Amino acid sequence: MDKVVIQNLEANNQRDLSRLITKVENDGKINNITLDKLFKKTNQAIRIGVTGPPGAGKSSITNELIKYFIDNDQKVGVIAIDPTSPFSGGSLLGDRVRMNQYHNDENVFIRSMSTHGHLGGLSRKAQYIGDILAITGKDVIIFETVGVGQGEYEIVNVADLTIIVLVPEAGDEVQLMKAGLIEIGDLFVVNKSDRKGSEQLTEKLKSTININKEITRPVFNTIAKEGKGIEELFNGIMKKFKELEDSGYLLQRRIDRYKVRVKNIIQENLLSKFWTSNKKEKLNQATNSLQNLKKSPMAAAEEIMESIDL
Amino acid sequence: MDKVVIQNLEANNQRDLSRLITKVENDGKINNITLDKLFKKTNQAIRIGVTGPPGAGKSSITNELIKYFIDNDQKVGVIAIDPTSPFSGGSLLGDRVRMNQYHNDENVFIRSMSTHGHLGGLSRKAQYIGDILAITGKDVIIFETVGVGQGEYEIVNVADLTIIVLVPEAGDEVQLMKAGLIEIGDLFVVNKSDRKGSEQLTEKLKSTININKEITRPVFNTIAKEGKGIEELFNGIMKKFKELEDSGYLLQRRIDRYKVRVKNIIQENLLSKFWTSNKKEKLNQATNSLQNLKKSPMAAAEEIMESIDL
Repeated sequence: MDKVVIQNLEANNQRDLSRLITKVENDGKINNITLDKLFKKTNQAIRIGVTGPPGAGKSSITNELIKYFIDNDQKVGVIAIDPTSPFSGGSLLGDRVRMNQYHNDENVFIRSMSTHGHLGGLSRKAQYIGDILAITGKDVIIFETVGVGQGEYEIVNVADLTIIVLVPEAGDEVQLMKAGLIEIGDLFVVNKSDRKGSEQLTEKLKSTININKEITRPVFNTIAKEGKGIEELFNGIMKKFKELEDSGYLLQRRIDRYKVRVKNIIQENLLSKFWTSNKKEKLNQATNSLQNLKKSPMAAAEEIMESIDL
Repeated sequence: MDKVVIQNLEANNQRDLSRLITKVENDGKINNITLDKLFKKTNQAIRIGVTGPPGAGKSSITNELIKYFIDNDQKVGVIAIDPTSPFSGGSLLGDRVRMNQYHNDENVFIRSMSTHGHLGGLSRKAQYIGDILAITGKDVIIFETVGVGQGEYEIVNVADLTIIVLVPEAGDEVQLMKAGLIEIGDLFVVNKSDRKGSEQLTEKLKSTININKEITRPVFNTIAKEGKGIEELFNGIMKKFKELEDSGYLLQRRIDRYKVRVKNIIQENLLSKFWTSNKKEKLNQATNSLQNLKKSPMAAAEEIMESIDL
């Protein structure tokens, strides 16, 4: 990467930042962006994941939290991987306008990423973008992703701590546990808490998530659109982060994440070395007719692996 | 694989079938299950994906469809990858009992698979299990997965045709499109159609999904718990399958799926060759302290790749 660009990054040059992020977004092969000696700066930022079902109000909560971080002299970067997020242009005009309030604030940088159905690769890209934001001096990086099913697991790969946002209609706790959201949350938010069922969900959550008494996982009640409950959530985040840091959990999570990244880079390199144009052609030939599909994929794989241009 | 087991599979021996499926489920490395010359039989079954948000009634619809397939002299296999499915034990006792009605029917085989957050690997296993079921003579294989976010994309990798199940409360069409469900459905079901908003959703769906006039994608209204609308859905599935077959889309989908499988097998083989215990140890050493994490993951990957035991 260009030395000047790196220096500009460190100086929080917004144009260079945008350009570099676009480069990461568009290029499947981002391993050449080594970030070199700057990498050590990337561990200075807190990475927060915000996930939950569509319509739970994740963006509103993120938006309200930003204010508290700014008041606390912290620079904020937001990466919205949520296809339903207004940050990603996925909502009505009113929301988009609301989200643009930080447009000219150099302490806040908001960026959306589209999924195109490949969240796996996306979480890798999101990590790089997180690194880049950390290098520009962001103290807090928020990853917003939609999660009912698989998305919630992806966020664990990028965040230091994860906030699960639910609404009173979220259903009974069995459904929640099965959906996997319970396992991965460090903090829980029942948003739109003025709605029916809020208290019941809050109580159920509290009793469900704190079976393991070692780590307490708090539940917060918010009405994000009115800014209610956000201060408590903000304080809860800071407290939880401190807890994770002191207990060593944070370091372990970062190590795990780092290992996954190293493995992914190696995998990408191995595959790109393997798939010469010769081998790609061989695969196409092996699948160009119904007749060929009668061979098992394992047999086809073996034939390609045995070809000599490895 | 044992020759006797294979023969027993072809004879639809339920015990051997269960055992082999468990083997596939438990063993990450399933490439050695080549299924050999039996593989050509695997393309004789229709593979149907049923996906949609939790609580939409996917299992109820699957359950009702089974009856029609049986009446139509078709043997059915069901693989429930949905953590919220009663097939997976993810619901209340009443549901589980209801689902067990085919317990002693040798023409119906129902199996659940848990996700543990790794749907990627799971869809690969689900394909193998689909192959195995096809070899036992199942004519129809139904994959039931929960999908809001990423799960819906995975099902495309295993199914010949995909049914999206929604409920009237599913929200506006923008949300749906963003959630990716619209793109991947061949047939749409508005279940619980006696509820408020059913007509509006049906109309919105019809106008949204059929912008591309080349392929018509039908919308069905059902009340699965009362068996209403299932016959129309069943007929719609058979008609759609014929359409896909005649147009060549089916072959193309199967080729694409096959290619992905070959690529995955090769990837797994390359990685298992690469990650010798030496290299694993190197990775552990590279990540055993906070100090080490200051090196970029790309630099760490390079060091491991350069070690000589490749």
